[in-house]
Amino acid sequence: MLKVPEHQVAGHDDERGTRELTFYHSFSSNTRIPHHIRRFFPVFHGTQLLKASDGSGLRPHLVLQDITSDHLNPSILDIKIGSRTWYLEASNDYIQNCFHRDKTTTTVSLGFRICGLQIYNESGFWKPGRKLVRNFTADDVRSVLRKFVSSNVGPEPDCCFARSVYGGCDGILERLLELKTWFEDQTMYHFRSCSVLLLFDKESFLRGKTPFAEVKLIDFAHVEDGNGVIDHNFLGGLCSFIKFVSQVLADSKGSTMEDKI
Amino acid sequence: MLKVPEHQVAGHDDERGTRELTFYHSFSSNTRIPHHIRRFFPVFHGTQLLKASDGSGLRPHLVLQDITSDHLNPSILDIKIGSRTWYLEASNDYIQNCFHRDKTTTTVSLGFRICGLQIYNESGFWKPGRKLVRNFTADDVRSVLRKFVSSNVGPEPDCCFARSVYGGCDGILERLLELKTWFEDQTMYHFRSCSVLLLFDKESFLRGKTPFAEVKLIDFAHVEDGNGVIDHNFLGGLCSFIKFVSQVLADSKGSTMEDKI
Repeated sequence: MLKVPEHQVAGHDDERGTRELTFYHSFSSNTRIPHHIRRFFPVFHGTQLLKASDGSGLRPHLVLQDITSDHLNPSILDIKIGSRTWYLEASNDYIQNCFHRDKTTTTVSLGFRICGLQIYNESGFWKPGRKLVRNFTADDVRSVLRKFVSSNVGPEPDCCFARSVYGGCDGILERLLELKTWFEDQTMYHFRSCSVLLLFDKESFLRGKTPFAEVKLIDFAHVEDGNGVIDHNFLGGLCSFIKFVSQVLADSKGSTMEDKI
Repeated sequence: MLKVPEHQVAGHDDERGTRELTFYHSFSSNTRIPHHIRRFFPVFHGTQLLKASDGSGLRPHLVLQDITSDHLNPSILDIKIGSRTWYLEASNDYIQNCFHRDKTTTTVSLGFRICGLQIYNESGFWKPGRKLVRNFTADDVRSVLRKFVSSNVGPEPDCCFARSVYGGCDGILERLLELKTWFEDQTMYHFRSCSVLLLFDKESFLRGKTPFAEVKLIDFAHVEDGNGVIDHNFLGGLCSFIKFVSQVLADSKGSTMEDKI
């Protein structure tokens, strides 16, 4: 239930945690969030005093739903959405740092970047290192999106779960389109530097458990006030990501899970 | 029919004109452009040798449809779409120049910026200077969008043409949504630094001429190959602009042209 230290409100990571808490307080009391949109966010259970990660005494920590706890061996993609991760009010150094990272990853070119992943297969988890992930190209992204829904992670992923996981009315694509519709309209928040988390548990799928695939939003330390403007940065990146997922789905029509079982 | 020197292919503006010509050649022979999308682009009549603007002899010029020629006193908004006007392959100086301009106009914050306008009213055209336009805030943009469809351009624009110009099945909003749908799908071109031109002719409207309002895309000197990725930069900005137009339309329900005549 408790995610420590990423969600520690105070401590060496003071400001970040405080900003994330501010967002959760605003969001959880915001009556203009539709119910079907609230489901995309981790459930917020308030704060709790816990020992700080640096051992310096009790500090308030965010208590959030652990999205992965219901799953045995979840495959996870963490996709930071948007072609820009900096914000106008930031210091010049901060902007230049983000700007450099954005240009040298797929953030600028694709409008999103994969910033973490683990994919489960017969031999355990495939979890490439940070440096490898940071150097992903558009083709690497396509390959990861195929491996995420395959029974193998070799050079020719079979995409046998693509239709079940990405497609259908409960699939990831449909969830992403729901999010998109909300982002076309909402002008309350700008989700700077937030991630879309895709989760797929082959075990849950094979046992017929639902949901076996989920879409969540995470990382709200840099959420800004929308000031009556839509979050065109998030929306553009989300549309680009949706197109990538659609393409994998379209390419894998024909190969289905049923072929493999 | 001939726009000189903006569309001069060679001359002091060599590179820019050549790149624009390359786009028109590619676009006009591209069979994957739907008919209803082609209508958003100026008709391309090829090139013609004309005297260069610097008097240095005959040069090829782009021959394009003059969008405004059918109209007596057109009100025009030129909106550069996208939260980024630079491209990854450009020189560092070029990127820093664009980046600075993008941050100090509404390009980054709104995903678009007004880069030129003329609005016709009783006393002639209102055409603010470049510097004033460059310093437009979000509120200034809202105000211009109201004045564009008003019979007055004072501090309280009456928005009496809003429903006719922005609304309805032939209105500007519907056209913009058509464009949006195409941009959600097309991965052929990235329309870097392009503008959406809104044109409204009160005279044509009052005489019942159609179209009295038009949406066109212009300025293709920086169009890039899409490489299988949607133009999330243009799409995000377009969605933001659509929201601004929708808000003006929603706010002006009640006040109609009919009230004024």
